[in-house]
Amino acid sequence: MENKYVCSVDIGGTKIATAIMEYPADGGVPHPVFEAEVPTEAQEGGEAVFQRIEASIKAALEANPDVEVLGVGIGAAGVVDPKTGAIAYANEIMPGWSGVQLGPRLREDLGLPVAVVGDVQAHALGEAHWGVGKGKFSVLCLGIGTGIGGAYVENGRVMQGFHGAAGHMGHIECSAAAGIPCACGRSGHLESVASGTSIGRMYDERFGRVDPSRPSVGRDVNDLCRAGDAKATEVIHDAGFALGASLGSLANILDPEVIVLSGGVIHQGPDWRSQTWKDSVHEGYASQALDPLQDTPILIGSLEGDAPLIGAAEHLLASLK
Amino acid sequence: MENKYVCSVDIGGTKIATAIMEYPADGGVPHPVFEAEVPTEAQEGGEAVFQRIEASIKAALEANPDVEVLGVGIGAAGVVDPKTGAIAYANEIMPGWSGVQLGPRLREDLGLPVAVVGDVQAHALGEAHWGVGKGKFSVLCLGIGTGIGGAYVENGRVMQGFHGAAGHMGHIECSAAAGIPCACGRSGHLESVASGTSIGRMYDERFGRVDPSRPSVGRDVNDLCRAGDAKATEVIHDAGFALGASLGSLANILDPEVIVLSGGVIHQGPDWRSQTWKDSVHEGYASQALDPLQDTPILIGSLEGDAPLIGAAEHLLASLK
Repeated sequence: MENKYVCSVDIGGTKIATAIMEYPADGGVPHPVFEAEVPTEAQEGGEAVFQRIEASIKAALEANPDVEVLGVGIGAAGVVDPKTGAIAYANEIMPGWSGVQLGPRLREDLGLPVAVVGDVQAHALGEAHWGVGKGKFSVLCLGIGTGIGGAYVENGRVMQGFHGAAGHMGHIECSAAAGIPCACGRSGHLESVASGTSIGRMYDERFGRVDPSRPSVGRDVNDLCRAGDAKATEVIHDAGFALGASLGSLANILDPEVIVLSGGVIHQGPDWRSQTWKDSVHEGYASQALDPLQDTPILIGSLEGDAPLIGAAEHLLASLK
Repeated sequence: MENKYVCSVDIGGTKIATAIMEYPADGGVPHPVFEAEVPTEAQEGGEAVFQRIEASIKAALEANPDVEVLGVGIGAAGVVDPKTGAIAYANEIMPGWSGVQLGPRLREDLGLPVAVVGDVQAHALGEAHWGVGKGKFSVLCLGIGTGIGGAYVENGRVMQGFHGAAGHMGHIECSAAAGIPCACGRSGHLESVASGTSIGRMYDERFGRVDPSRPSVGRDVNDLCRAGDAKATEVIHDAGFALGASLGSLANILDPEVIVLSGGVIHQGPDWRSQTWKDSVHEGYASQALDPLQDTPILIGSLEGDAPLIGAAEHLLASLK
């Protein structure tokens, strides 16, 4: 067996990462042998972003003339049409991104197989295939950052949903959020009480800003919690408990073999994964999960930044089968 | 092509229904050519129930000596181990049912293929293959009765989960239920504000019993609502809105092509499906579903009582592939 190569792209609201991923012949973890990054400059509109993506892919392929890629796997911000790989829906963070025929145009222009999946779905595929979810029947992933997203992977395939919109785990009703407005325009959602943004907002609402010159963010509150501050500890506890309770709801629906938490809030803080937060998550989970599901492991993702690139490559490989 | 036959069994807390299902050679809807029913007598314990099931199957096969069945498909109360077809977990309605090696013992005793799935999962398989979900990529089914259960079917396969416990859609947090105890021992669940039992309880709590000699049930409240009673209309509205809101949460997670409502509350009332209730369900759904999911159809199941028997047969056929 020879090494295999896939071109992977991770399209976010702020940057476009492009890589050539090598799958070692010995079955080892896939890893980038080439990486490049450009700003998304989303405000320039969907067509400009598309041109930047295509140029990035072409540059990556040209920079690696001795590598023959099996195709291009893409994890993209927005809702991706599972049938075509076009962008079916995007919010105001990516103006004009909705409707971009990402998969179809790249397929035609590049003459290569192209498979597109949502960015959070790509992340989950990475963790399920090569991270802490490796070898598990099913993996429920939640990404906790400025917002909360998620994805469910069973038998190695990510559930995309009919419109590509499956996995909006941050936008389910959570008792702790009842009545609180959510960034999506609705109310009562998990994201409103457990994301990094929400943790900062909850602190400010209850106790006033940590730094009077700007709204607090999750890390501010976590830093105070580490230092033993009782008010910050209360907020962190409440956010963790709410997240755990929603994980319980999700387990009652999906019954995954393992739950994997990832994303900026989990990975970026110096020790965001504080014992307060962990204990609170487990307490919330125990309060909601049905008896046969009480012992479902809640793990921390192990791949960090490479997860979406690995997952995008896996999605491409699955599309070739 | 010839007609095919499957022995189907539907095991509930009160009765065990056994049927020989015929799949017409012309591709028409499968239907029972033989049916029998015995009381479950669950209080006699798991072993007695097992013996009654096995005797029912043998009697059905003996009564149809000219029919060769492909195997036995079973929809069973409780949580069914997807790997073996044993009963992994059951609540106090079926004492001693947990742990019964239903699939393994029947396979050995009958010398036939046996496939076991949860009863609500079987119901959903029926609707997805031959009811209003026919031909759809994915179907989210909720059964609304004394309790609320559910199942998700994608590409014709029901999601059973790692322990067989997927689909407990009644046991997710719903803002309208915050703080209200649920029959499962937890609190804040959809079932506590939208099941037939809960509708009766909500009416009694707010306005006193309809019939002072007994707690009200859903049908009592619906009858009043039909007669134009404003108090009953308020309760029916609130229950419908809560159900719709949870359907929105579920759509944000699963993104099904269609949502199908079924179960005793939907089918047994003379017109339980009142306009008040329908409007409230849609209002609740619209309040929670994300923009790309606002138009997901919410349908009423069409198979009624035969759905679990048809679904159990489908599960057996899928297991033979």
